Amino acid sequence: MFAVVMCGGSGTRFWPASRKQRPKQFLDITGKGPMIVETCGRLRPIIRDEEMVLILGKKHLAEARQIFDGREISMLAEPVGRNTAPCIGLGAIYARYRNYNGPVAFLPADHFIGDPGAFLKSLQTGGDVAETGGIATIGIVPNRPETGYGYIKRGEPDGKSEDRQIFSVSQFVEKPDLETAVAYLASGDYYWNGGIFVATPETILKETKRQLPELYAGLLELEKVFGTDDFEPAFQEVYENLASVSFDYGIMENIQEPVYVIPSQCGWSDVGSWESLYELRSSEQDNDGNLGDGGNIFIDCEGTFASGRSGRMIACLGLKNCLVVDTEDSLLVADLKNSQDIRKVVDLLKETGRDDLL
Amino acid sequence: MFAVVMCGGSGTRFWPASRKQRPKQFLDITGKGPMIVETCGRLRPIIRDEEMVLILGKKHLAEARQIFDGREISMLAEPVGRNTAPCIGLGAIYARYRNYNGPVAFLPADHFIGDPGAFLKSLQTGGDVAETGGIATIGIVPNRPETGYGYIKRGEPDGKSEDRQIFSVSQFVEKPDLETAVAYLASGDYYWNGGIFVATPETILKETKRQLPELYAGLLELEKVFGTDDFEPAFQEVYENLASVSFDYGIMENIQEPVYVIPSQCGWSDVGSWESLYELRSSEQDNDGNLGDGGNIFIDCEGTFASGRSGRMIACLGLKNCLVVDTEDSLLVADLKNSQDIRKVVDLLKETGRDDLL
Repeated sequence: MFAVVMCGGSGTRFWPASRKQRPKQFLDITGKGPMIVETCGRLRPIIRDEEMVLILGKKHLAEARQIFDGREISMLAEPVGRNTAPCIGLGAIYARYRNYNGPVAFLPADHFIGDPGAFLKSLQTGGDVAETGGIATIGIVPNRPETGYGYIKRGEPDGKSEDRQIFSVSQFVEKPDLETAVAYLASGDYYWNGGIFVATPETILKETKRQLPELYAGLLELEKVFGTDDFEPAFQEVYENLASVSFDYGIMENIQEPVYVIPSQCGWSDVGSWESLYELRSSEQDNDGNLGDGGNIFIDCEGTFASGRSGRMIACLGLKNCLVVDTEDSLLVADLKNSQDIRKVVDLLKETGRDDLL
Repeated sequence: MFAVVMCGGSGTRFWPASRKQRPKQFLDITGKGPMIVETCGRLRPIIRDEEMVLILGKKHLAEARQIFDGREISMLAEPVGRNTAPCIGLGAIYARYRNYNGPVAFLPADHFIGDPGAFLKSLQTGGDVAETGGIATIGIVPNRPETGYGYIKRGEPDGKSEDRQIFSVSQFVEKPDLETAVAYLASGDYYWNGGIFVATPETILKETKRQLPELYAGLLELEKVFGTDDFEPAFQEVYENLASVSFDYGIMENIQEPVYVIPSQCGWSDVGSWESLYELRSSEQDNDGNLGDGGNIFIDCEGTFASGRSGRMIACLGLKNCLVVDTEDSLLVADLKNSQDIRKVVDLLKETGRDDLL
């Protein structure tokens, strides 16, 4: 299998640990190394480095090269961000240029997977399904009525396999309200949409040609110059003229190819906030639910998460559900339950001209 | 008037801003300079630098010399701490050595006074009273049923003056419980004991001779060698052999000299905790009761105090009654209402061998 690892995303939700120059996918937030290394690492049992391509923003190329120094992972640095449809199209055309016509896994670089074995099994099932056409999405079996994710509603079981669960997709649905999410969970027909799918380059390019012909034309131009000196200027020119459009909106919404969902219980999380990271690391919490990175002190605290990234001593006293993130130049102290509001801090820093801290 | 400014005290209650080497009296916690500078500064309208002596711990001498560089304030650095009776005796004998036999003000270096004019007036009244004998204490008129201070119960009005309030002291009482404090406040007969008083050297030394003869003998030895090369070794030897005893217990409890109280509404606070500092600075708080030193960000916060001493950006988000103190090597995040529990943090740091942070 070939893998296209999508490394976009600014990751302001992990400020001050994440910065414009160093978004979440390049951070070690789970304590096991940068997320992107984790993401590539868990693919290795079925995909070799040579068959992985990272698609990332130009400003993150240096960081990625340093992280993967000495490894044969390919990298494509988009000159400007144009959302996911161009990114996925680029991955598809690059795979075809590399003479890879089998199933390609498309996946975000900044997700957590608790059970990599189960994940790879789902990915392989997806590959088997997608080999003969169509798009195989990974459907994360939900364990709570989450309102923060989109859902995939399954349709009929697919006849292609006997011993594995494969369904046609009945519908993609947006983030639900709590009542709806509870009903989804109870029905057993809905899965979280983690944005992970498998398809051949042919399938992706066929749909791109049909639905986004200008993008397709741009991709064909790039295909001609991959590996030559003409690539960089062509990349720049093609991307500058592309419209920003998401794969969900530009391709999936009106897709004619069959779409499948492979249910997966792989302990997936998009780690979308400090709070979700805190919950993910529940096994590391002390008896009072406190979680500290490094030699922090917790006295009379409950449910408090102290992430020290500066080496400074962090003493927490009498706190409840508090988040402390300490970095060299910035300190965040927040209510852990409202950690998604970090956006407000980032916005205020922007407004007040403190871009140096972003 | 002569002034003896007592600069002892380790001030762990302001950790991490205060340290062993730099206790509260040397810190700028009110935003107007080191407390000791404030203390000496507010005396200046009635007491010249040359008539002030600071009594401090040996390890703080360098800091004090630096702070008062170029000023003619005398300093006596106790070789070891022996509580307040020796300190006050030392101040008295030093004033006598300096041929000062009038009233001497004895006062702690680390208190806040909101109305210095009213304070000086009280001090001068105290001086007038003490000139002819006895000890004149300053009684802070209470504005709340405070359980954290000792109280002075007034007795009969004193005939010495017609236009000023002077009372004999009926009783010194320890920190009361809340019910008692409420009754004290309602009665109007009780004042907070701020540990500030005025007396002549003669009065202090007479009582010291009567009640603490060994201390008195030591002081006489020092009197003989002040200003000579023999002073340092004598100071060391005398102090090493002294018992630790408080002025309240060793002198005041069985005093035969008359004791007076001068009621004072001078906006006094002992600034005993981060919380009391926060309350003291209520005029600097924003509409939601947030107080920040420096360019902090408060979003959706209430009653939160962020004291930045490192130059780092401190972003507070969704906090209520929270205390954040950021220094170069240590960070404290605490419930502001329990800021007196900082002692627990300090103790834990000691236990775990982190004396470098104390």
